[in-house]
Amino acid sequence: MSETLLSPGQLEAALRAIGEERYHNRHPFHRALHDGRLSRTQVQAWALNRYYYQARIPAKDATLLARLPTAELRREWRRRIEDHDGDAPGTGGVARWLRLTDGLGLERDYVESLDGLLPGTRFAVDAYVHFVGERSILEAIASSLTELFSPTIISERVSGMLRNYDFITQDTLAYFTPRLTQAPRDSDFALAYVKTHACTIPQQQAVLAALRFKCGVLWSMLDALDYAYVEPGLIPPGAFRPV
Amino acid sequence: MSETLLSPGQLEAALRAIGEERYHNRHPFHRALHDGRLSRTQVQAWALNRYYYQARIPAKDATLLARLPTAELRREWRRRIEDHDGDAPGTGGVARWLRLTDGLGLERDYVESLDGLLPGTRFAVDAYVHFVGERSILEAIASSLTELFSPTIISERVSGMLRNYDFITQDTLAYFTPRLTQAPRDSDFALAYVKTHACTIPQQQAVLAALRFKCGVLWSMLDALDYAYVEPGLIPPGAFRPV
Repeated sequence: MSETLLSPGQLEAALRAIGEERYHNRHPFHRALHDGRLSRTQVQAWALNRYYYQARIPAKDATLLARLPTAELRREWRRRIEDHDGDAPGTGGVARWLRLTDGLGLERDYVESLDGLLPGTRFAVDAYVHFVGERSILEAIASSLTELFSPTIISERVSGMLRNYDFITQDTLAYFTPRLTQAPRDSDFALAYVKTHACTIPQQQAVLAALRFKCGVLWSMLDALDYAYVEPGLIPPGAFRPV
Repeated sequence: MSETLLSPGQLEAALRAIGEERYHNRHPFHRALHDGRLSRTQVQAWALNRYYYQARIPAKDATLLARLPTAELRREWRRRIEDHDGDAPGTGGVARWLRLTDGLGLERDYVESLDGLLPGTRFAVDAYVHFVGERSILEAIASSLTELFSPTIISERVSGMLRNYDFITQDTLAYFTPRLTQAPRDSDFALAYVKTHACTIPQQQAVLAALRFKCGVLWSMLDALDYAYVEPGLIPPGAFRPV
C-alpha cells in the first residue's frame, strides 16, 4: 500500500487496481451464475438476496444526501435516488429488480418481506448503509466507486444469463439496461470528486480503504450465497429454501 | 411463530426453542473445531476473527448502557463491560482472548490491527453493535440471550479442544473459565427482564426476533470462516492467509 502522496492519475490507477483484485466479477459464484452452471433455484436465491441490496441503495444514497453540504452536490446525488425509486409506481431500479424476481417465479410478497434473506446479506448491506452515515463524505463517495467496474460485469451478466438459462428473458433482465448508462455517469462524478478532494496521504489512504470496504460488501454477499446454496450448500436456519 | 400472548414461561420456552434450532453449536464449523478436525491455521483463523467479536462486546454493551434509563439497570449492565475490559491492563475477557491468539502463535499487533479479518465477521459484529443502538431497549436486552446457551458450548469447546489439539493448553483457554459463571448470571438477569417487560404480542414477537437476529450473527460468522478456511476454502482478498 502506497504511503506517498499520489497524483490524481496515480490515485485513479490505485483505485482501478483494487477493482482488478477485489471486484466480485472474480468471485466463483459470479462465474457460475453467468456460465449457466446454476440451477433455477440457485438463481432465485441470488435474485432474492440481491434484492435487499437494491432495496437499500436509496436508503444508502439518502443517508449520504442528508450529509452533503451544497445544493450542487445534493442535486447530483439525488439523481441516484430518482434512478432507483423512479417517478411513478413500477418505475425505477428497485421495481425493475422485482421484474427479475417475478420472472424467476418468486412471490413478490415473499421477496419484499425479506423473510428468506441470508443473515450475511443483511449484515453486508446494512454495513454499507452505516458506512456512508458514519465515515467522512469523501469516504462515503469513494465507497460508490465499485460502479467504475460494473458495466463490464453487467454486460457479462446479461449476455451470459440470456445464453445459458431458458428461464431468463430480456424482459426479466430489464434492470440492467439503464444501469449501463447510469453507472458510468455516476462513477465519472464520484471519481472526479475523489481525485479533486483526496489531497493528503491520509485522505488518499481512506479513499482506497473505502473502495476495499465496498468490494468486501459485494464479495461477502457472494460468499454467503455460495456457501448456502452451492458448496457446501448449508442453508442457515430461517433462510430461503428451494421447494 | 406464535401470534398469541404467551405466559412468561411460554415465552422462555419459545426463546429456548430458538436456541435449539439456531444456536451456533449446531454449525458444522463448531463441530469440526471441537472434534479436532481443524488444522492449527484453521484454529488461528477462528481465534483471529472471533477476537473482533470479543473486542466489540464492550462497545456493544456501552452503546446499550448509554440508553438505559435507571442507575439500577446501568449498574447491572456496567458489570458486563467490567468483565470484558477488566480492572487493570492484562485483565478482563478481551485480554484473556489475546492469550488464546498468543498461544496459537499469532502476532498480537496483527490481531489487534484487524487487518486479516473476514469482511463477513466485521459486518456481522458491527450489525450487533448497531442493533443495540437502534432497536428498543427490550430488543437490545433480548439480543444478549444467546448467553442462555453458552455454558454448554463453552464446556464442549474447552474439553474438546484440550483433548484434540496439542497446540492448545489450559492457559490459552483461560478466556472461557470465568464465562462459565458470568454468562449464566448475565442471562438470568436478561431473561427475567424480558419475561417481565415483554407484555404484548408485538413485544414478545420483537423479543423472539431479536434472539433470532443474534443467532444469525453468530451463525454467519461461522459460515464465513467455514467458507474461507474449510470448504471450499476460498479466502476473500485481503483476509488472513495461513503461511
